[in-house]
Amino acid sequence: MTSPFFERIVVVGLGLIGSSLARAIKRGGLAGTLVGVDASTAVRARAEALGFADRVLADPAAASAGADLVVLATPVGAYRAIGEALAPALKAGAILSDVGSVKGAVVKMLAPLMPPGTHLIPAHPVAGTEHSGPDAGFAELFEGRWCIVTPPAGADPAAIEKVAELWRRVGMKVEAMDPAHHDLVLAITSHLPHLIAYNIVGTADDLEAVTKSEVIKFAAGGFRDFTRIAASDPVMWRDVFLNNREAVLEMLGRFTEDLTALQRAIRWGDGAALEALFTRTRAIRRSIIDAGQADPEEQKRRDDAAAAAARNAAARR
Amino acid sequence: MTSPFFERIVVVGLGLIGSSLARAIKRGGLAGTLVGVDASTAVRARAEALGFADRVLADPAAASAGADLVVLATPVGAYRAIGEALAPALKAGAILSDVGSVKGAVVKMLAPLMPPGTHLIPAHPVAGTEHSGPDAGFAELFEGRWCIVTPPAGADPAAIEKVAELWRRVGMKVEAMDPAHHDLVLAITSHLPHLIAYNIVGTADDLEAVTKSEVIKFAAGGFRDFTRIAASDPVMWRDVFLNNREAVLEMLGRFTEDLTALQRAIRWGDGAALEALFTRTRAIRRSIIDAGQADPEEQKRRDDAAAAAARNAAARR
Repeated sequence: MTSPFFERIVVVGLGLIGSSLARAIKRGGLAGTLVGVDASTAVRARAEALGFADRVLADPAAASAGADLVVLATPVGAYRAIGEALAPALKAGAILSDVGSVKGAVVKMLAPLMPPGTHLIPAHPVAGTEHSGPDAGFAELFEGRWCIVTPPAGADPAAIEKVAELWRRVGMKVEAMDPAHHDLVLAITSHLPHLIAYNIVGTADDLEAVTKSEVIKFAAGGFRDFTRIAASDPVMWRDVFLNNREAVLEMLGRFTEDLTALQRAIRWGDGAALEALFTRTRAIRRSIIDAGQADPEEQKRRDDAAAAAARNAAARR
Repeated sequence: MTSPFFERIVVVGLGLIGSSLARAIKRGGLAGTLVGVDASTAVRARAEALGFADRVLADPAAASAGADLVVLATPVGAYRAIGEALAPALKAGAILSDVGSVKGAVVKMLAPLMPPGTHLIPAHPVAGTEHSGPDAGFAELFEGRWCIVTPPAGADPAAIEKVAELWRRVGMKVEAMDPAHHDLVLAITSHLPHLIAYNIVGTADDLEAVTKSEVIKFAAGGFRDFTRIAASDPVMWRDVFLNNREAVLEMLGRFTEDLTALQRAIRWGDGAALEALFTRTRAIRRSIIDAGQADPEEQKRRDDAAAAAARNAAARR
């Protein structure tokens, strides 16, 4: 019999990502003991009922004593208080990691709290759905997607590899990146798309000349895809924007500049400029499909799993 | 034996929408004779091979002689020339319709060309995929979606009903709307979403600090959904923006205003404002799902059909 990959893993925050990770760890037999932690009584009760963790606790410090790996999976805004509570309980050699969508702020927040001999290895599995909570999670969430590991300068190579290998074993491809560069890459590939999706849905909601019922009925023309993104967890995303301000503002500045040029092309009837942009953007979609990041079959498997999880969650409401 | 719904239908433009309509008409036995018209030799050859029309011609005027219904399914920018060519060939009682995404400009362009005793009944089936061309079409494209019929003031009620019923018979729900109001509704539910999707993909493509390969790898964080929309037909969309300028600029102005407020909230760390918007937008997604416009099962059937059509098209390249 092989020994588990980590003796004791603690996942703090049992929402979509945390509970999916717990399920995937359990499926893979990657932990001797898997402890789930959540501050919410309701979430803990659901986690107990769903059974994706061996034990479910409220106190991150008590849970983390003796842990080999602790993974924070709460909104980033809660990291500081949780880190302050649990860091002193970490044993020598323990690894503290996370799944947050911003990384520079996380390193800045958590690094000073780490006791000597422990390792901070933040990570960001780039995967998700628009659903939230322990019922929305599913073990297949991570398959075929990229996880970005962002160790601070001077981090222990063995600890980095251990975290990278965990994500590989739940199905992800792994890439290491500097935390600041991560924040820039994600600002354009994730944070800005979410911001403008939230924004356009808000704009539509405020119109008087077009009714809400019309917006809903005719959403199939493109708007619907934005509403999916704009249904993502509000607290998680609030914390992303508060903690990746510089990179998001930089990308937003460029976006707005480009949009102003496009606005001018429309106003002046510059069809050639419009067609040139629209032709160029088409090629990028092709690259994403060729890179396997929009494989229809894989997408379908994931969507099916997400839909099943969402149905289960809805049935409980 | 029942007689077909129209004796002779002509579809001008055999791309995604035109060829899907032809397939759906054929499947439903809705035309005695279905004539496909396209200016491109290559498209006509594919249409002949795919066999979704009884006859395939190059000349819209010759095709339209004796037609009961002519449907324009080219980019809107080509309507004027095609309308000038075919309108004189229309017989008394013939209906000229279309599938364009803008309606005010279409009425303005085509109404003056209509011979006495003929009927202009524009329509807009709100359905599509990011793929183009005769191979990308499929008969199921329209099912469960809305078609907006936008008759000019004073149009013949029987002709309106005939066009509405055709769209019902290919699976759509039908609503009548004033052309100008249509353009406002679609500006927010379709045109602006496409514009900002094209724009963000262009912005990402221009970055130096983030490589193209990084954008592609980590597209799963939200960006990928925008690339799908930004892969839509460039000429069709150029013509949409050129022909719905006022409504698009109006919606774009509101969008930019709201985005500036959001930018300010990020800059000043106003988490409450961000969370309030992100919570509000979540409710709209729920309404769209409740309205059946994002039913996962229906979506899956459509996606499967679109993927199969795209695979067939790719296999031919």
